[in-house]
Amino acid sequence: MIMSESSGSPSSPPPPGLKVELGRDRPIRLDCGVDLGPVTVAYQTYGRLNADKSNAILICHALTGDHYVADPHPITGKPGWWSELVGPGRVFDTDRYFLICSNVLGGCMGTTGPMDVNPATGQPWNLSFPVITIGDMVQVQARLVDHLGIDRLFCVVGGSMGGMQVLEWAHSFPERVFAAIPIAAAARHSAQNIAFHEVGRQAIVADPDWCEGNYLLEGKRPHRGLAVARMAAHITYLSEPALHQKFGRNLQNRETVTYGFDADFQVESYLRHQGSTFVDRFDANSYLYITRAMDYFDLAAENGGVLANAFRGTRTRFCVVSFTSDWLFPTPESRAIVHALNAVAANVSFVEIKSDKGHDAFLLDEPEFHATLTGFLEGAAAHRGLPRAKGGGP
Amino acid sequence: MIMSESSGSPSSPPPPGLKVELGRDRPIRLDCGVDLGPVTVAYQTYGRLNADKSNAILICHALTGDHYVADPHPITGKPGWWSELVGPGRVFDTDRYFLICSNVLGGCMGTTGPMDVNPATGQPWNLSFPVITIGDMVQVQARLVDHLGIDRLFCVVGGSMGGMQVLEWAHSFPERVFAAIPIAAAARHSAQNIAFHEVGRQAIVADPDWCEGNYLLEGKRPHRGLAVARMAAHITYLSEPALHQKFGRNLQNRETVTYGFDADFQVESYLRHQGSTFVDRFDANSYLYITRAMDYFDLAAENGGVLANAFRGTRTRFCVVSFTSDWLFPTPESRAIVHALNAVAANVSFVEIKSDKGHDAFLLDEPEFHATLTGFLEGAAAHRGLPRAKGGGP
Repeated sequence: MIMSESSGSPSSPPPPGLKVELGRDRPIRLDCGVDLGPVTVAYQTYGRLNADKSNAILICHALTGDHYVADPHPITGKPGWWSELVGPGRVFDTDRYFLICSNVLGGCMGTTGPMDVNPATGQPWNLSFPVITIGDMVQVQARLVDHLGIDRLFCVVGGSMGGMQVLEWAHSFPERVFAAIPIAAAARHSAQNIAFHEVGRQAIVADPDWCEGNYLLEGKRPHRGLAVARMAAHITYLSEPALHQKFGRNLQNRETVTYGFDADFQVESYLRHQGSTFVDRFDANSYLYITRAMDYFDLAAENGGVLANAFRGTRTRFCVVSFTSDWLFPTPESRAIVHALNAVAANVSFVEIKSDKGHDAFLLDEPEFHATLTGFLEGAAAHRGLPRAKGGGP
Repeated sequence: MIMSESSGSPSSPPPPGLKVELGRDRPIRLDCGVDLGPVTVAYQTYGRLNADKSNAILICHALTGDHYVADPHPITGKPGWWSELVGPGRVFDTDRYFLICSNVLGGCMGTTGPMDVNPATGQPWNLSFPVITIGDMVQVQARLVDHLGIDRLFCVVGGSMGGMQVLEWAHSFPERVFAAIPIAAAARHSAQNIAFHEVGRQAIVADPDWCEGNYLLEGKRPHRGLAVARMAAHITYLSEPALHQKFGRNLQNRETVTYGFDADFQVESYLRHQGSTFVDRFDANSYLYITRAMDYFDLAAENGGVLANAFRGTRTRFCVVSFTSDWLFPTPESRAIVHALNAVAANVSFVEIKSDKGHDAFLLDEPEFHATLTGFLEGAAAHRGLPRAKGGGP
């Protein structure tokens, strides 16, 4: 179901699987200079928007995430990626907050991306889709928030690429963000991370079924290349201790090695599974575009080379979170954000969570992390004047 | 030029590019149970073997290395991988030592491997080549050392997979190894390292030009898959600080990003170059076999689960070397080796070199590392009774 920009009814909770068309009359000016519109945005909401629209939390998803935060994924059937955190009395208390999550621009789960049809040609965009940035993703989210009639978000929260979006929100729309929680993120993508992304992209474009990006027209899918990209990336989401504890050198359903190239080791079998299941739910060109957006992210460079300039004058309350075993977005990246915020006397808390789960810790059962989120949100809610859930509406 | 096992003249230095056929009468019993023979071994030597054959150093190369230690590579024309360390008065003093390095079993630079013809069929082995182990590589090296008429090596030295071979030598032939220098190595391949290898292998087998391993018969080469494998691996050979210092987010010959999928960033251009040049000098099936051999390496498992058992009773003098920024074979792996050697009261020195160059530090200009090698070799040479170079022959 697609609603036009004016047809929304933001004060009543929409059903899951909403879509809205934005920017038909006023296209979105992308960082690359292209005017894009209309743009379809797929999103989910949880909880109810209160009367003064002050309890909205925008959740930003990561590279291969989507807006199915707490609903079963429509393709895999698996629980939403933050299901455990969403619900009455949970971290994101649906009795108290109104949660919004949209599939990012360039995505493949309903929001306009390279696999969609370019209305100007009637053909899939494929590689003619403009190259997008984290800033572009946030511009589109801001239009969605406009559409929902919300001036100021109570909080913007997200991990990894979601955390980049949180930082971009706080930079681009400081007055619209009461509180911000960038998790396992960075203000710029490191050389090593660009390198890993480039390996993934090269794996995709090396697949003949990629067809120079036109696989949809050829009736093909570059599943092999995309699976390899996913496998390489997946290693970076874990930690060596986690891999060691989970798999070590354990063999897969066998007593001894087979002296062959089957998946003798459990870790091989696990990785192959990660690759082969990913291709069912993700689009290869979307992977190219979204990884590129992350590579381009560099908030300091956009602000005269000084990260603090990105946040000068901010009144947003920040909670920056990192994980000890995260080597993709290691703690020093979060510290750099905290130092920049301190330099402009921003209100910032910083928590490094002790975890052996690596970058993916933000998606996993980490009680200390969840307690941190709850505590920060409660404090911010008190400052925002949001009543406790059981205390009734405002 | 191929010499038979009996035709060598080991006391006079053979010219570069030697080959010898071994195991025709007595095949090599591989760990997988297959008897392999004859096996051609390509090797290089430097310096002169002394009269009592007590000055031989066996250098073991890494995954994608070869025996061109100090000669220009016959395909790339680049200097040998340890050129700076070999020569009169250098770390491996050719006035003093007789250096031997052979291409490993399963390799693609002259020693028998999957791209060679199986004499039984007249066709390339391809995937019918038996799966080999580090132990098998060392068995073949031992045959070469026999052929050269050397009972006991003064030293066995190597980095990364070369270091695994050093450990295997010290375990399998303790009486034949006076001194051993495992560098940036481990006594077992970790789960994370197996995972990275598996990504590389999957990239190769995903390439349709791999032809189920039979690309030689089809007149094809899986260059795209092999290049992706190399790119992924290459990241693991460096360190985040090295990548940051070398490339950071610097752009490649442009002022601003292009909003496209060209190599905007220098690190992308560098990686692509690493991938595209690698395929000219390396064989894809060799890459499968040699990575597999590394995955299988687990010296403790072969010795009742106790690494110390691998070295019980050893009289070899060890120098274990690691590098601070090596995250592929991090220092704890070397410490585990040292602890095992200490447990059996072995003679062991351990040096962790401070370096930001990552795993590849053992191939690069690291003065402290080179000084460590020189110092250890001099001490061992004194114990072995080897005269100083300028002091004349024994």
